[in-house]
Amino acid sequence: MTTAISLKERSLLGLKDLSRDEIMSILNRAAYWDSQSEKVVPILNHKFVVNMFFENSTRTRFSFEMAEKRLGAEVMNFAAAASSVEKGESISDTVRTLEAVGVDAGVIRLNPAGVLQELAERVSIPLVNAGDGNNEHPTQALLDLYTMKQVFGEFSGLTVSIIGDIKHSRVARSNLWALQKLGARVQFCAPETMMAPELAVHAPYVSMETAMKADVVMMLRVQLERHSEGVFKSKAEYREHYGLTEERAAGLARHAIIMHPAPFNRNVEIDDAVVESEKSTIFKQMSNGVPIRMAVIERAMKG
Amino acid sequence: MTTAISLKERSLLGLKDLSRDEIMSILNRAAYWDSQSEKVVPILNHKFVVNMFFENSTRTRFSFEMAEKRLGAEVMNFAAAASSVEKGESISDTVRTLEAVGVDAGVIRLNPAGVLQELAERVSIPLVNAGDGNNEHPTQALLDLYTMKQVFGEFSGLTVSIIGDIKHSRVARSNLWALQKLGARVQFCAPETMMAPELAVHAPYVSMETAMKADVVMMLRVQLERHSEGVFKSKAEYREHYGLTEERAAGLARHAIIMHPAPFNRNVEIDDAVVESEKSTIFKQMSNGVPIRMAVIERAMKG
Amino acid sequence: MTTAISLKERSLLGLKDLSRDEIMSILNRAAYWDSQSEKVVPILNHKFVVNMFFENSTRTRFSFEMAEKRLGAEVMNFAAAASSVEKGESISDTVRTLEAVGVDAGVIRLNPAGVLQELAERVSIPLVNAGDGNNEHPTQALLDLYTMKQVFGEFSGLTVSIIGDIKHSRVARSNLWALQKLGARVQFCAPETMMAPELAVHAPYVSMETAMKADVVMMLRVQLERHSEGVFKSKAEYREHYGLTEERAAGLARHAIIMHPAPFNRNVEIDDAVVESEKSTIFKQMSNGVPIRMAVIERAMKG
Repeated sequence: MTTAISLKERSLLGLKDLSRDEIMSILNRAAYWDSQSEKVVPILNHKFVVNMFFENSTRTRFSFEMAEKRLGAEVMNFAAAASSVEKGESISDTVRTLEAVGVDAGVIRLNPAGVLQELAERVSIPLVNAGDGNNEHPTQALLDLYTMKQVFGEFSGLTVSIIGDIKHSRVARSNLWALQKLGARVQFCAPETMMAPELAVHAPYVSMETAMKADVVMMLRVQLERHSEGVFKSKAEYREHYGLTEERAAGLARHAIIMHPAPFNRNVEIDDAVVESEKSTIFKQMSNGVPIRMAVIERAMKG
Repeated sequence: MTTAISLKERSLLGLKDLSRDEIMSILNRAAYWDSQSEKVVPILNHKFVVNMFFENSTRTRFSFEMAEKRLGAEVMNFAAAASSVEKGESISDTVRTLEAVGVDAGVIRLNPAGVLQELAERVSIPLVNAGDGNNEHPTQALLDLYTMKQVFGEFSGLTVSIIGDIKHSRVARSNLWALQKLGARVQFCAPETMMAPELAVHAPYVSMETAMKADVVMMLRVQLERHSEGVFKSKAEYREHYGLTEERAAGLARHAIIMHPAPFNRNVEIDDAVVESEKSTIFKQMSNGVPIRMAVIERAMKG
Repeated sequence: MTTAISLKERSLLGLKDLSRDEIMSILNRAAYWDSQSEKVVPILNHKFVVNMFFENSTRTRFSFEMAEKRLGAEVMNFAAAASSVEKGESISDTVRTLEAVGVDAGVIRLNPAGVLQELAERVSIPLVNAGDGNNEHPTQALLDLYTMKQVFGEFSGLTVSIIGDIKHSRVARSNLWALQKLGARVQFCAPETMMAPELAVHAPYVSMETAMKADVVMMLRVQLERHSEGVFKSKAEYREHYGLTEERAAGLARHAIIMHPAPFNRNVEIDDAVVESEKSTIFKQMSNGVPIRMAVIERAMKG
């Protein structure tokens, strides 16, 4: 069982089961990589990693690819839209094929939630979760944490409002689990159709007015087309009730920051001017994704 | 004509026209690569190879890409679904473009059969067949041979049953040509609608009962949707008559092995439990694809 | 403003605003790269470039990728068909993401015309135009110029006929701007529905008969399906009036050359036999694309 334990220690499936110390250790290692002046430090020379995106994502894939190449790894990319029916089986066999040809680790994005956990039990290479269903997106939350740490120094005492489609958000879940371990206070804000009732025991749902008083205001991408039963007649109506408009942004605390995992719908959940405003850490978050993923990939593949 | 001959020697279009010695030389070189402890041996540094998949294949493409990168080659990938109408012309012009930009060799999968041969006559870089129509899939057969050799040591005296959709199978054809050159006995087993009558002069069609007595039982992927005129009402019915079920597998000779080129339809042509059973060399075949393709790519590009 | 100017000097958005000296400097540097015997000269080691193709192109992408890898750069590829509606916004945010993750330069093909210019003002990495709408395709024109220079030595006194769908051609425009700066005489030939009236002040429209008397006959790819209102009933009719048939090719000046940016429609705008004839520089143009793009990428990324 030594191998299984060690493999489990190398994989990153989610933050829910990661200890506070493990999270801090990744954040600290990311700070190390962030401070390097050399762009490529080839500690993973002759190691092979495959990025498997069963759900499309330009941004996340490029961020991982950059991290992998900055560590000197050989990178292979794979993108496929597997139909929901064949998924379970075909994803598992695809990953086992890659393992058989000698890949050392896999970064994987897939749908639906739950498949990744099963998969990790069937293969013997480390897997890094790049987004699974509405379950977890651990590297996104880690880069969010890293960004908050850069601004505030510590998590204890911090209030974080996560606003929008909580129900479908793996970003909200990964941030919730990690922030609470680190001593921050999380609160959600969402229209009723976008609430995840099962999370209510972990964090309160608050009004938009209360949400705006937080130290960190994290907006989520809204996909109105997913909510046929929704109460919103239009994007404008969503913006009016749950958007971070210029007016609302003007009322935030002086020290508050505005986050968004991107891609964003400008002038729906967040105003164009707010994206580009001084309080916004959105592009900084994207940059921070690289050292975070270097730390996570190094952890999976080194030594 | 020196160039043409030397080019022909470097290309691998099929096994039908390859001599016994050439096949053995590739198998031996694969064994050499298989025995290397270093993952990357950059003998193809600064050489460029392009993988052109006009027909999709995750597994084969990754196996080639791994082989190419383990030899230090620069790899470019290209995937396109060309319509059957424009194919002949556009594939030829695409390959000539790649040749013009300085690519040193091409790995190519395409459809229909016959196009590859024409193509090889129009370009002056070595081409490696990664599957052309229902004609040949030489690297698949070579890795099958390599796997049999690992188990049995030699081919002479070996009986190999190839079972399933012989008609559409390039794997069956490449294995047939090579196994017979090496002294093995090949027999086919297929429902009438999946027989290739023109192969009957080369190898007998036998009953499922007889097929199960072989040393090697090679199952082929079945695509029932291709056989509208078929006699099978369902996957279950196909499995009943031609599937390698757990019951049938239990009756195989003690020393027999079970092969499949993958991807497989679990519980159609092969039972789930049989894929994972001890007799199955399926995942070993996938691993063996890498040293085989290293040998084939080295042969095409080195020196 | 130093950065902005220096960035502008590194980007290559079009030839219209490039000076004669800058064009000649790129052509001379391409000649240097063309003369190198080493295939890879890694002056861009540890630099990252991304090829972003919002419009598909195998040939151009491979030519850039080859150029980038011959200079030792790390290459990332991105292909997406963005719908015309979301384009402006999503392309801009995608490019800013890539900038945020640390990419050093971007090669970009997109539609419609005009978007690239805006984009270049919003990002702070050099951008190389790989084709924007019907506006410019500067590296194609540069490789055309390079090919003409190889044959004729100089541009002054040269007459170049550009024939076909001038209206939709970025190749025609980039060649027009550059050739005139270098002292060549450009003339267009096109059916009325394929004329670009706004270019008539820069170069005359001539008859096919006159066009055939030039030193350089550059045929453009025709896409009859774009011209629903066209006068041509068929490809055969287009060929009869504006195609470079074998008969017409036979009447060209002894020293004349035949160019085409590819891909071509054999036996529509150019006869099959003409593509393969001695006067044709079509495959030479493809080869010349690599040193030209090496010069352009080096200019964007080096130092």
